[in-house]
Amino acid sequence: MFTTQTYVARRKQLAEAVGHGLIILPGNGEAPMNYAGNPYPFRQDSTFRYFAGLNQPDLILTINAETGESLLYGDEATLDDMVWMGEQTGLDELAQRAGLQVGGNLQKAVDTLCLSEVVHYLPTYRDARQMLLCQCLNEDDRPSEKLIRAVIAQRSYKSAEELAEMDRAVTTSMAMHRAAAAGAKPGMREAEVAGMVEGLAISAGGRLAYAAIVSRDGHILHNHAHHNVLREGDLLLIDAGAETPSGYAGDITRTFAVGAEMTAKQQAVYDIVDDAKRRVIEAIRPGVPFRELHDLSARIITNGLKQLGLMKGDTAEAVAAGAHALFYPHGLGHMIGLDVHDMEDLGEDFVGYDEEFQRSEQFGTRNLRLGRRLEEGFTITVEPGIYFIPILTDRWRAEGKHTEYINYDALAAYRDFGGIRLEDNVVVTADNCRVLGSV
Amino acid sequence: MFTTQTYVARRKQLAEAVGHGLIILPGNGEAPMNYAGNPYPFRQDSTFRYFAGLNQPDLILTINAETGESLLYGDEATLDDMVWMGEQTGLDELAQRAGLQVGGNLQKAVDTLCLSEVVHYLPTYRDARQMLLCQCLNEDDRPSEKLIRAVIAQRSYKSAEELAEMDRAVTTSMAMHRAAAAGAKPGMREAEVAGMVEGLAISAGGRLAYAAIVSRDGHILHNHAHHNVLREGDLLLIDAGAETPSGYAGDITRTFAVGAEMTAKQQAVYDIVDDAKRRVIEAIRPGVPFRELHDLSARIITNGLKQLGLMKGDTAEAVAAGAHALFYPHGLGHMIGLDVHDMEDLGEDFVGYDEEFQRSEQFGTRNLRLGRRLEEGFTITVEPGIYFIPILTDRWRAEGKHTEYINYDALAAYRDFGGIRLEDNVVVTADNCRVLGSV
Ligand SMILES: [Mn+2]
Ligand SMILES: [Mn+2]
Repeated sequence: MFTTQTYVARRKQLAEAVGHGLIILPGNGEAPMNYAGNPYPFRQDSTFRYFAGLNQPDLILTINAETGESLLYGDEATLDDMVWMGEQTGLDELAQRAGLQVGGNLQKAVDTLCLSEVVHYLPTYRDARQMLLCQCLNEDDRPSEKLIRAVIAQRSYKSAEELAEMDRAVTTSMAMHRAAAAGAKPGMREAEVAGMVEGLAISAGGRLAYAAIVSRDGHILHNHAHHNVLREGDLLLIDAGAETPSGYAGDITRTFAVGAEMTAKQQAVYDIVDDAKRRVIEAIRPGVPFRELHDLSARIITNGLKQLGLMKGDTAEAVAAGAHALFYPHGLGHMIGLDVHDMEDLGEDFVGYDEEFQRSEQFGTRNLRLGRRLEEGFTITVEPGIYFIPILTDRWRAEGKHTEYINYDALAAYRDFGGIRLEDNVVVTADNCRVLGSV
Repeated sequence: MFTTQTYVARRKQLAEAVGHGLIILPGNGEAPMNYAGNPYPFRQDSTFRYFAGLNQPDLILTINAETGESLLYGDEATLDDMVWMGEQTGLDELAQRAGLQVGGNLQKAVDTLCLSEVVHYLPTYRDARQMLLCQCLNEDDRPSEKLIRAVIAQRSYKSAEELAEMDRAVTTSMAMHRAAAAGAKPGMREAEVAGMVEGLAISAGGRLAYAAIVSRDGHILHNHAHHNVLREGDLLLIDAGAETPSGYAGDITRTFAVGAEMTAKQQAVYDIVDDAKRRVIEAIRPGVPFRELHDLSARIITNGLKQLGLMKGDTAEAVAAGAHALFYPHGLGHMIGLDVHDMEDLGEDFVGYDEEFQRSEQFGTRNLRLGRRLEEGFTITVEPGIYFIPILTDRWRAEGKHTEYINYDALAAYRDFGGIRLEDNVVVTADNCRVLGSV
């Protein structure tokens, strides 16, 4: 587990990278659900947690980039708080755990912020934080690119302690998938399976890392409705990952036939996706651009679809033209860590692209969140898929799009097929990669 | 289930009660968890849902209080949205389901709001809504008390259709408690039981109505930590309720001994709480002030604690002085409906108090959310409890508080007892009440 010294070292590295000015890293507060007193489960800001390690709401961390002085701000609990919520850890004790000094209450943090000439802050994703910063910043202040880059430069490389947590997240996630595969029966609603999956994430002491997809409509990529009744032989796509008590995410997808062996038709599509996942994982090593691995997966999928008579023409040309995206309209994967899409709040292009690799503008490939060369210590997902999306097929066919690569007539037989995605999480090692959760 | 006509009639009644001006009822948007693309499970605003019946994010309802004209505003889905999230119901179709006319996109709603002289809006509990309203309102604009009172006057009385949903919420909640009681074993962590409970709420097609309490530290009233390991004979307090797919809440509490019969000492305290719950439920009828039922429960608890040698003196005087609140520092119950604390966002005192009954300022009783006379159709919780809270006991003893009513010396033997709460949900009928979920 993480020691106080871990957080001290992380903050020292950050201060040195930023160099001057005041770094402010606010933690999250409670997020009201249907009234202020009924919040959603508390979720700490990932960057705050990375640099302070504390999982309590309403704390603010500041780091003086010149001196390295790191201060923790927060309001002390009242007796009423303690009657209702039990003995609360005091600010002194929290600061000590994190190797911080006490700065004062939250108002003091705002005052300090207002008095500082150069303030480095990150992009906001909750309105409450925006409103906090607005109290002191000028209209033309912007999130600090220097801070963004410095944070990404640290969080992208997972330490041995972090990898242990990632393994734990994936192990729990795999247990959720095994329970779902064993429990899903014809006649059940998708929601019943979703409840098993989410219940196990909570039983492990954490929660889900993101809303689970449990759907026989696997072709609807972000489908969080769970009202369908499962029928024998339905392809059930489950994309679900646990978040550990320490905040690390797993992100695993499996697809299986409910209460039946797969049909030959289902198995043929499954095998293409499985082949793409396996061959990408074999090709991962430091120095390989993830964009190239994405293209590799697109070529494997295109070749497979050609063998099924659904695509045609030259594979490389079809992929270059983006024809495969009718079946595979998303990216091969993304960074994963304290966030399921790691550091997405800081800006996807800062995380996944650089001067050498810029984001594509092509339909499908533009959804690839990670394009840059892989490095040792990166943790990423590998998640190829094949989907039959009627609304997209009809649109493309009507537009006469990519008719040289797509056999639209043959697609009629797949209209109700659904979709298949398979997803693992890996860490890039010195020589290749290791699938997480497999230790 | 609720028909289009239900929503039309509800809006007509509201417009007539408010009389003039423009009523604006914004629905909720997605609430970001750790970045914008990873939101918490969507939770619609309860009042929006009551008057429009729609469970999609980012919709706004306006009602012209003079003409009754009711408009729905929202942005249409793009093809990209549909590839990722499946076919989306258009604004036209949503409006038709709710018996509304289409107003236009969200910007149009803001423009309309800015042009309106008299705007009635409700208190906000999410920053996003505050920021929406801030675009148009003046500094000195305030939530409309007329609208608040009109909404409460409707939502307080549950229709037969609503009671069917409340029964469903409680039935699911009871199944969660039965599973927990059957599944909780010595050696398990509280989190394992919490996962079973929450998983079943999700399996039923909804979610939890509020964060579950699953704790052997039942004396910590709002304890959402679940890391303790259960030991044989531990009192496990579970306060957990399901929210139905239609948005109605259950709120049930049970306390039992893990893997054992209760000891005589545990059973004696349990019996007092159970007696309080039963006798309050017997006393419920239209016209009875809930404040008096709260006091009744406090007297039953005080009498019981006197028999155990923990309290002494005149019961009525002890309760009037607030001495019982050392053991019972919360209120007897609250309204329940689309919110677990129904309409708490509109202001507890508007919901639970009136000219005849004002909120007490006494420790304990000041936490009573409902004091007014009960009426037919109200749905409320009944949740007496007895807790042994060391931090509060120590404080009161040091202050010499209520020494004429409390035997502090005898309390040493109960220091590690924990707490017991029992909670049912009832509907006030013409003659008395019916416990929900019992049909
Ligand atoms: Mn993923
Ligand atoms: Mn309650």
